[in-house]
Amino acid sequence: MGTEVLPSLSGANRIAGREVEGTGRIVRGVDPHTGSPLPVEFRDAGSVQVDAALEAALGSRASLQDRTRRGRALELVAEALLEDQPSLAAIAEVETGLPAARLDGEVVRAADQFRAFARVVREGAYLEAHIDRATQSSPDLRRLLHPLGPVVVFGASNFPFAFSVAGGDTASALAAGCPVVVKAHPAHPGTSELSARSIERGLAEADVDLGVFSMLHGADPSVGGALVTHPHTRAVGFTGSLRAGRALMDLAAARPDPIPVYAEMGSVNPAFVTPAAIAARGQELAATLAGSVTLGMGQFCTKPGLLVIPKDAVDFEGELVEAMTGVQLHPMLSGPIRDAFRTGLDQTAEVDGVEDLLPLRRLAGDGFVQPPVLLATDLETLRSRDILREERFGPFCLVVRAELAEYVEVAALLPGSLVASIFAEPSDDPRLEDLHRCLEERCGRIVYDGVSTGVAVSPAMQHGGPYPAASTAMFSSVGDTAIRRFLRPVAYQNARVPVLPDELRDRPSAPLWRTVDGQLTRDGICS
Amino acid sequence: MGTEVLPSLSGANRIAGREVEGTGRIVRGVDPHTGSPLPVEFRDAGSVQVDAALEAALGSRASLQDRTRRGRALELVAEALLEDQPSLAAIAEVETGLPAARLDGEVVRAADQFRAFARVVREGAYLEAHIDRATQSSPDLRRLLHPLGPVVVFGASNFPFAFSVAGGDTASALAAGCPVVVKAHPAHPGTSELSARSIERGLAEADVDLGVFSMLHGADPSVGGALVTHPHTRAVGFTGSLRAGRALMDLAAARPDPIPVYAEMGSVNPAFVTPAAIAARGQELAATLAGSVTLGMGQFCTKPGLLVIPKDAVDFEGELVEAMTGVQLHPMLSGPIRDAFRTGLDQTAEVDGVEDLLPLRRLAGDGFVQPPVLLATDLETLRSRDILREERFGPFCLVVRAELAEYVEVAALLPGSLVASIFAEPSDDPRLEDLHRCLEERCGRIVYDGVSTGVAVSPAMQHGGPYPAASTAMFSSVGDTAIRRFLRPVAYQNARVPVLPDELRDRPSAPLWRTVDGQLTRDGICS
Repeated sequence: MGTEVLPSLSGANRIAGREVEGTGRIVRGVDPHTGSPLPVEFRDAGSVQVDAALEAALGSRASLQDRTRRGRALELVAEALLEDQPSLAAIAEVETGLPAARLDGEVVRAADQFRAFARVVREGAYLEAHIDRATQSSPDLRRLLHPLGPVVVFGASNFPFAFSVAGGDTASALAAGCPVVVKAHPAHPGTSELSARSIERGLAEADVDLGVFSMLHGADPSVGGALVTHPHTRAVGFTGSLRAGRALMDLAAARPDPIPVYAEMGSVNPAFVTPAAIAARGQELAATLAGSVTLGMGQFCTKPGLLVIPKDAVDFEGELVEAMTGVQLHPMLSGPIRDAFRTGLDQTAEVDGVEDLLPLRRLAGDGFVQPPVLLATDLETLRSRDILREERFGPFCLVVRAELAEYVEVAALLPGSLVASIFAEPSDDPRLEDLHRCLEERCGRIVYDGVSTGVAVSPAMQHGGPYPAASTAMFSSVGDTAIRRFLRPVAYQNARVPVLPDELRDRPSAPLWRTVDGQLTRDGICS
Repeated sequence: MGTEVLPSLSGANRIAGREVEGTGRIVRGVDPHTGSPLPVEFRDAGSVQVDAALEAALGSRASLQDRTRRGRALELVAEALLEDQPSLAAIAEVETGLPAARLDGEVVRAADQFRAFARVVREGAYLEAHIDRATQSSPDLRRLLHPLGPVVVFGASNFPFAFSVAGGDTASALAAGCPVVVKAHPAHPGTSELSARSIERGLAEADVDLGVFSMLHGADPSVGGALVTHPHTRAVGFTGSLRAGRALMDLAAARPDPIPVYAEMGSVNPAFVTPAAIAARGQELAATLAGSVTLGMGQFCTKPGLLVIPKDAVDFEGELVEAMTGVQLHPMLSGPIRDAFRTGLDQTAEVDGVEDLLPLRRLAGDGFVQPPVLLATDLETLRSRDILREERFGPFCLVVRAELAEYVEVAALLPGSLVASIFAEPSDDPRLEDLHRCLEERCGRIVYDGVSTGVAVSPAMQHGGPYPAASTAMFSSVGDTAIRRFLRPVAYQNARVPVLPDELRDRPSAPLWRTVDGQLTRDGICS
């Protein structure tokens, strides 16, 4: 099952297209089915490698300047990922235990993200170009967005492609013109190495200086710390736990020159089901929700972790229990994730007023397998205990029984989430106005009559939300707009044509959307 | 000279349209011409008033929801400011000592900013509305920007209107739909009180709940700290010193839920003059630069604080000295600003290798008057001493003598700036390419053959820059785009029409620019 790719791994870091042996501690991947270490040894980067990667990043940034070449490079990276799909999916299956079909699809999704950003770069509207021509009282002023500089990306464990080395943070930072240094997630070091090689091949084919991309191993937190505090680093992308994300935020905020950390962290993602929806399609909803809670063994940042249902929905609860019981079990992603899940679970289940609806919540199976857990409580208990409002990363959901009129009170208790969902009938709408407004302030996305898992890569996607779901609610880490995280405006006043970026000249070499004297237009300026 | 408006002042805070006596310490304005305290006593807000202002802000936010009413409110605030121009300018003249004509003009500028944001709100493109219609593989997804919530604004001392209570931060936050609590600058408390009353009148005429605007006195730093750490506060706007700005950034970053601080702080704003430019128009340039350095007694955030000139430009230096000597003196804005200026000056002038070109740099005149200071040094000295690369807020400039080929080395030594300027002849352009690229990475705006002072309020303006010029280089505090600092995206998936914001419906009530299926258009959707 994919272990034939193991001998191709070097275990080294990848710096500017070269294999560079780390000087840090040795780490090995783990087979999630057995919990046993895999044969290849990976070595953490030391401070010398951290410095080398960021020097290469800074020194090569000009090579990402040309927008046409950058778009082409993103396309070629997408092609390289697709060409390498079999080996990428094979090693990921060995290291993560995720199903092969899911991993195949995720490589395609990662490639699609590179392609989507290639389109964004080609179109050029993301540059937010503005031209204000001189008037009697004001000067000629032209403005567009420039890359921030080297970006450090932390790979996530749960999407070894779409949110890891070849994920959306890497794609959007490169698209913005920022060199990238990825800190590989220690749960899939081999997948990270192969992903890095695919990216390098795509970049090399576009004749981009390979200094714009490096991948370092860093199982020890000191490596991540050194990357975030390095003077060349201009921004950080992170997907993972609240604890780790907040630690990076604090490091970045304490720098002599603070830098932004775009951290996507813990999210409860509440789901609300009205009595009318249960009456109309309760059984179907129970199956849908159970599937969403346990998808990928609940290790999705968009997993519904809190389910608000009517107080007397006995049948619906029964259907939910049944659906959860029938779920096929897979190992969890890693030992630390499984252990953290169990610890959090035990603390939550011990709270007075919390009922265990699936009393088989205990160790079962081999390796990192963990059966799903469904607890239930009421509004008063939820209100009194913070611990019930925290994310549990794994196959877990807390049912909250409440009157329909109390749903908004439940929502108002919750911390920021990436996404919330509402299952209701049209007849409910007038009574849900307050709930809707409350969720708008607490979530980045609201889904109607659908589950929160599943994040389309499209211009209108918002994947982010108020703290602690994300470090800042102001940006998305998925979709076209994710590129804005790595850009800053620069204005040119009275500039002569030779110093003006092509996109700000009266007649740019290719049309793009700009505002000219306050009006959006794709037309050049006739002088 | 304006003191007739003093009796109209209450000395109280303004909370939600009401006069509320503070429970903090008593502060009085100071006459900058004499250094003597003015008669009116102002009382700092205590924690009860801080809480009341932010409760009012949070509770009234829905009243800013309607975009049409919000635009109308901004227009009416602009009208109120213009109606009150005589009394506003009069009190500001008493408290700041700035020339009457400048203050009259600044009230107009402040009103213009409210009008500019009224236009931005009316047009609606700032909402960044995206609509992705459902396809076989993806859901209907619609996204637009929502207000962040209550914003705390710190008034600046040097622009008592354009960057204070009625300044761009207040205007852009209200435009975004965010309630505002302003912390008044203690150097012009009476101007702050009258400005607040003008704003309230405009809001009241638009039928907006007055809870959306409060103004508190807070000479004691604890008031600002309480505002930044208050749980309801969602963002902070600040213009002032690096020390104060960084303290607020650190407070905001240490919150349980960190929030953004948009601080515009110390900026050196280097100016570069080539030998060819001096040969062509040296005398004119010397006069222009001396005027820019001493404009408003050098108390502009865009003041050129470092001037790079050829090594052998003896005549030019002489013309510069002469122009600086002839400048008409005004008092500085406040005792603390004058004292900080003198302390910094003494430390800078003492550095080995720094020459004083205007040895009249000593106390002269009454009150807060301070003659301009011109020091000179070379590249090596600049490289060796950090203190020479810090902002000196006041009538000061450090001349750096260097070869043209070394200009880029000077630029590379400098911290982030709001703006840089280059005075050159077209024949210089090929040799300035590196300097230009270096400044692009270190500044928010580059001015060619013009001074950095003077910030046009227009869509293409960028007023911001890399740290320490601003807390983040990613936004502007002047111009249309300043509104983006107070917004966050929310996406609606499969939403029924009644819950969708008007701007995301197939046919919105008024046309606005949106992307529909990735294409920018002002057309509605025909279904």
